[in-house]
Amino acid sequence: MEAKNILGGNTEGHLRPNLSQIERLKQFARQSASMLNLDRLDRELDQKLDREIASETGMSQPTKAAVIVIGGGEDKVQDRKILRAFVESSGGTSARIGIIPSASREPDIIGRIYSDIFRDLGAEFVDVFDIRDRRDRYQDDPGRLLDDFTGVFMTGGDQLRLCAIIGDTPFALAMRERVHQKRLVLAGTSAGAAAMGHHMISGGSSGETPHKEIVNMATGLGILPEIIVDQHFHNRNRMCRLMTAISSHPEMLGVGIDEDTAAVFEHDNLIKVVGRGAVTIIDPVEMSYSNQLWVSNTAPLTVHNLRIHILAAGAEYNLIKRVPISPSV
Amino acid sequence: MEAKNILGGNTEGHLRPNLSQIERLKQFARQSASMLNLDRLDRELDQKLDREIASETGMSQPTKAAVIVIGGGEDKVQDRKILRAFVESSGGTSARIGIIPSASREPDIIGRIYSDIFRDLGAEFVDVFDIRDRRDRYQDDPGRLLDDFTGVFMTGGDQLRLCAIIGDTPFALAMRERVHQKRLVLAGTSAGAAAMGHHMISGGSSGETPHKEIVNMATGLGILPEIIVDQHFHNRNRMCRLMTAISSHPEMLGVGIDEDTAAVFEHDNLIKVVGRGAVTIIDPVEMSYSNQLWVSNTAPLTVHNLRIHILAAGAEYNLIKRVPISPSV
Repeated sequence: MEAKNILGGNTEGHLRPNLSQIERLKQFARQSASMLNLDRLDRELDQKLDREIASETGMSQPTKAAVIVIGGGEDKVQDRKILRAFVESSGGTSARIGIIPSASREPDIIGRIYSDIFRDLGAEFVDVFDIRDRRDRYQDDPGRLLDDFTGVFMTGGDQLRLCAIIGDTPFALAMRERVHQKRLVLAGTSAGAAAMGHHMISGGSSGETPHKEIVNMATGLGILPEIIVDQHFHNRNRMCRLMTAISSHPEMLGVGIDEDTAAVFEHDNLIKVVGRGAVTIIDPVEMSYSNQLWVSNTAPLTVHNLRIHILAAGAEYNLIKRVPISPSV
Repeated sequence: MEAKNILGGNTEGHLRPNLSQIERLKQFARQSASMLNLDRLDRELDQKLDREIASETGMSQPTKAAVIVIGGGEDKVQDRKILRAFVESSGGTSARIGIIPSASREPDIIGRIYSDIFRDLGAEFVDVFDIRDRRDRYQDDPGRLLDDFTGVFMTGGDQLRLCAIIGDTPFALAMRERVHQKRLVLAGTSAGAAAMGHHMISGGSSGETPHKEIVNMATGLGILPEIIVDQHFHNRNRMCRLMTAISSHPEMLGVGIDEDTAAVFEHDNLIKVVGRGAVTIIDPVEMSYSNQLWVSNTAPLTVHNLRIHILAAGAEYNLIKRVPISPSV
């Protein structure tokens, strides 16, 4: 995973050649400050340059948030911290937001609920991408459609339904491309969160000794290809099913997200935690043994050496180094 | 933990000087076989010597099992694998078993149930230690009483009740001493399992983001002083409460035991897993950060670097090295 970007892009191949001249200038100034060991100056310079670029070019301040993965049950009436963070990351008052309600059996109702919220939170423009079919009009020229948006939000419902409707369609591919190119912020809650990985948990159970049947897997949208997401995490006692999923996909990283909590995946390969609960990381990189290959679907599993981090709001995790970042205490 | 025995004894001080001449002979023969790299011969020799010693001295075959910690709900009517293993470890047809039903509010009934089972499984003698008070007759000369027994079984019920009645009494101390001296096999199920540690989980909840109030701690019997036991483990979704308990006692090792499953702690510092479910080990030795000290009882926890092993029947764990033993596959 070293040289690769967690979003599936390659830092050598994809992102560096796309750095604009402005970004190069920024980087040079930042490096100068960094070489002088002026950390605060470094950050201030960075923020100042971001603001100047935004005002000079008329662009909104470039966001670092790439993908916002929400564990379901996010606050929709009070502070709306997570949904507000999504609107801010999408450009704040310049945000142009598309809502994908396809996971839901009531796309009209849920589309309207989120439209109202995002408008209320100050977004400039909100539309519902009412995709109900793999071949409907949204697939005609999805790149051109999406170029008019700064953020996309995938609602809850059923992740299998969502992926059956949009998985691997031109629309989904165009969306993924724009996220990786930093042109679009993508958020998903509940089913919309589960679908982020390439390997997706589609169902399962709790309250049992871990065994293969405790979790069902399917293919997700591959937005975060190296991540397996689980949501409503501690709320529905899903530690075991994510451990089970990860133990049969040891090249992946498990990310379990509680309700009203978000894991914000940034372009600099950090996860930042926002909201009321915790984000749990299950890292199998040191897994030395699992009996998965030899036992029946109902037999209890043996799994050696999983590494777990529980991260509350404010905590950060470095996806490249695979280490949580200790706050300065 | 290096030089210390997990049972709280000291391998230098306690156990080595107690090696009988017969055991020295055994050890010499075993070493010879081992030096010749004859593993099977080594084991066969070991078993043969054990049998010969048993027949020559009239002693029952020395058991390696010291403490059998059962996650509750053990099979009482069919194979009775775990209860049978306890009777075997206590001497089989020579087993003399005492039952402590003090955790239960119905000590008569539960005492009778287990008496019938242990007799049915072939134990030579079974009695119920009907301890209901910290100052009753069982405290008069507990050493002399216990010297007449080879195994003690603590039933389920309420671990707080059990510890309130026998914790730190002469009876409990005499029992612990005999376990560490390999003179007594001790088993406990459910509440009787929870009470094994020095730090004991007395209650808690699940289905919530980990926070300090998710688990209540009290003082246990200290039979396995460096272990925090949790029982009905995956069955009642207790991963989080044990993680929470361990993150505030990082010098301990967490052992979560499923129903109808036992962690057999042997005198050679191995845990062996028996039964239908799994034993889960939570090792905080690499825990690099926890916010426990700075947050309120209801705030979500941040905990970095817990190591987890899930161990099904047949799996083994080395308590000194703190590593699971990989089966030869």
